[in-house]
Amino acid sequence: MPGFDTITLLTDYGTSDEFVGVLKSVIWSIAPQVRIVDLCHEIAPFDVRGAGLMLARSAQYLCPGVVVAVVDPGVATARRAIAVEVGDGMSVLVGPDNGLLAPAVAMVGGASRAVELTNEALHLPAPGPTFAGRDVFAPIAAHLCNGVLFEQLGRRVDPVSLLPGLLPVSREEDGALVAEVLWTDRYGNLQLNVDPEEVDTFGEQVAVVLGSTRRIARRVETYGELRTGEVGLLVDSYGLAALVANRSSAAVELHADAGDQVRLERLDEQETATQRAASEVIVPFGRRNG
Amino acid sequence: MPGFDTITLLTDYGTSDEFVGVLKSVIWSIAPQVRIVDLCHEIAPFDVRGAGLMLARSAQYLCPGVVVAVVDPGVATARRAIAVEVGDGMSVLVGPDNGLLAPAVAMVGGASRAVELTNEALHLPAPGPTFAGRDVFAPIAAHLCNGVLFEQLGRRVDPVSLLPGLLPVSREEDGALVAEVLWTDRYGNLQLNVDPEEVDTFGEQVAVVLGSTRRIARRVETYGELRTGEVGLLVDSYGLAALVANRSSAAVELHADAGDQVRLERLDEQETATQRAASEVIVPFGRRNG
Amino acid sequence: MPGFDTITLLTDYGTSDEFVGVLKSVIWSIAPQVRIVDLCHEIAPFDVRGAGLMLARSAQYLCPGVVVAVVDPGVATARRAIAVEVGDGMSVLVGPDNGLLAPAVAMVGGASRAVELTNEALHLPAPGPTFAGRDVFAPIAAHLCNGVLFEQLGRRVDPVSLLPGLLPVSREEDGALVAEVLWTDRYGNLQLNVDPEEVDTFGEQVAVVLGSTRRIARRVETYGELRTGEVGLLVDSYGLAALVANRSSAAVELHADAGDQVRLERLDEQETATQRAASEVIVPFGRRNG
Repeated sequence: MPGFDTITLLTDYGTSDEFVGVLKSVIWSIAPQVRIVDLCHEIAPFDVRGAGLMLARSAQYLCPGVVVAVVDPGVATARRAIAVEVGDGMSVLVGPDNGLLAPAVAMVGGASRAVELTNEALHLPAPGPTFAGRDVFAPIAAHLCNGVLFEQLGRRVDPVSLLPGLLPVSREEDGALVAEVLWTDRYGNLQLNVDPEEVDTFGEQVAVVLGSTRRIARRVETYGELRTGEVGLLVDSYGLAALVANRSSAAVELHADAGDQVRLERLDEQETATQRAASEVIVPFGRRNG
Repeated sequence: MPGFDTITLLTDYGTSDEFVGVLKSVIWSIAPQVRIVDLCHEIAPFDVRGAGLMLARSAQYLCPGVVVAVVDPGVATARRAIAVEVGDGMSVLVGPDNGLLAPAVAMVGGASRAVELTNEALHLPAPGPTFAGRDVFAPIAAHLCNGVLFEQLGRRVDPVSLLPGLLPVSREEDGALVAEVLWTDRYGNLQLNVDPEEVDTFGEQVAVVLGSTRRIARRVETYGELRTGEVGLLVDSYGLAALVANRSSAAVELHADAGDQVRLERLDEQETATQRAASEVIVPFGRRNG
Repeated sequence: MPGFDTITLLTDYGTSDEFVGVLKSVIWSIAPQVRIVDLCHEIAPFDVRGAGLMLARSAQYLCPGVVVAVVDPGVATARRAIAVEVGDGMSVLVGPDNGLLAPAVAMVGGASRAVELTNEALHLPAPGPTFAGRDVFAPIAAHLCNGVLFEQLGRRVDPVSLLPGLLPVSREEDGALVAEVLWTDRYGNLQLNVDPEEVDTFGEQVAVVLGSTRRIARRVETYGELRTGEVGLLVDSYGLAALVANRSSAAVELHADAGDQVRLERLDEQETATQRAASEVIVPFGRRNG
């Protein structure tokens, strides 16, 4: 059976205007049977990178169907409006060709097909060209749910011609790991582009260098193991290394935010000795990682 | 078949309290089959004008059905609770009679019928009188979806007795256009109460006077045509003239907000000459409106 | 027929990350037929007390079904993940055993059964242990909707062993009532842990002592009866006494917030005389409570 039953939305529209409500009204006017999931609408205006990373993190949990992702500073300019098919047709991502969709497409195994949304018969007539979410992406998603075929959306394009997303890669440097903060969440946890295994040999404590400050982070499994003011390094819910604090914000504690460079280093001998002594002293008051 | 299948919600309830969730719980307890669309809940507290304008902008895109609009500083005072039928019964708007519904009603061709919500058998029993959304408007909307007839909601009132919405009208003055900012959106775009045709004879550049400052705005079709720091005048997604900037906020750039008066003027000869020279210089770095 | 058709969500996840969207995606991937109600996601991070009070306030309005409540600073530590059955099986509350669920459970008549969520076959495999909403609570709720039985969720626990919620109780002291602000809503209304009948004998005016300041509040039925700058005491929409202002914030006016102690006192003779004189003067400009 052609068609999809779920549309997932990710935008930088915010919730103080009617943009999201109008998007849903347009979708349900065309495809009243469809389920709509709001992934997030509070992406900072124009933050293509942040939205692309969010979509990639979420991809494995989303319902099969259509994803509409709109962070679109170049709306109505030469940037293409596209749809990308993934998972052998299990899902379609719809949005601007500005790198936003690329990390998620890569995460789920790459694109099988791509089209530019040139079939204007499937769009809404627009009083002005600046609200492509309402006039192009939402109706396209609804029509896909109604069984319109992918190839009817417009002109076929080669998936390799799509703008790639730029995912920062960590690198070794003099035995240290130079990484980047990918994401600061609501609680102030700082997700790094670091596979926890990359720092497995660094020991129970890791030095964290951010700009001109150097802090010791302790490897933990849960926030609760950390004392007030202490910074931890844990495997977060997406399987990446994250700098965290207990009931407070590591972002505030470390004055760090998404995009910042972080250097993870082994402790030197003196630091190791100091930490060991401190840790022995505080055992009765804290919890140790088993 | 009587009844409706969609309820659209517009309130100033915000999302930090349970108000919206309770509204939906009440609706779905009475009418579990109904679809609910959140148009917006982040209207500034008591901003009846802003909500009325939002509803008017959105009206043409909404699903037919019931609209519940609640911005209600006079809750439980003498202001009436009303329902207004529009589009020959295609939709019903429910809310306080304080001017909130009026712009949207006008936008869709006027009211065919109106009632005051005096049939308390259709309301929830209320511990206190201050949450009319939960106790009056939500159950009324749900009952309408279940097939309760419009005339059962209460006492018939003459639509011309409803409080009108005050929509500011632009006016000519010495060859200039005195207008008003209707809306500042999340991106800082300033929508004016100006039909773009009204300034068609003003040329490619228009002078914008806000308080004691005067700026030149260039007519463009897309944000992307503007250079950093430049202000543009474009036809927005609702077909009205808007002051905009590229990847930044025109509201911040112009220190303007909804309700401010804006004067649009023709450039004098000297300004025109200066602009032409500047524009010739910057052609290689920018894009010109075709 | 086993199973439920509604899941109500209450979290401190906020809406700037993908947490809520992922929760819904997980639920709908397992139980696509279920209706999801967002009660609130803007609980301040880790504010177990505020969320517990919100859930208790809302309980009587919620659709029967499953409630997922997640404010969980102790995630992945020794705190138990639990499900609590209430209303003879009409609803199930799912969340951490940290006092969050307790006020609502008490409000609806107590728990009939409780389990610890030890059946990991019903959880998602988790890359890290810190997102119990996604990996434990959401799938459990979805499985309950699909007809999985309560006793299959895990190890039976005695409801009396659950962590109680601490609800502050007002007390008399020298003829005054020492109370507490339970909740500051979006409009700045201050809900007190006071049954309006407790202050019925205090008269039309009540003295309000907050820290070192003392103000007179007038008993009213609606916001509209209050003059600018005046503080009122009204029966709020939940039937509790609340300190309010008219089109402005009582919280700002009184510099008060949730958790603050408030002392309600009878006016002394001098204050009563002064108030009576003032009230006679202002009658033509205000409205009196009937």
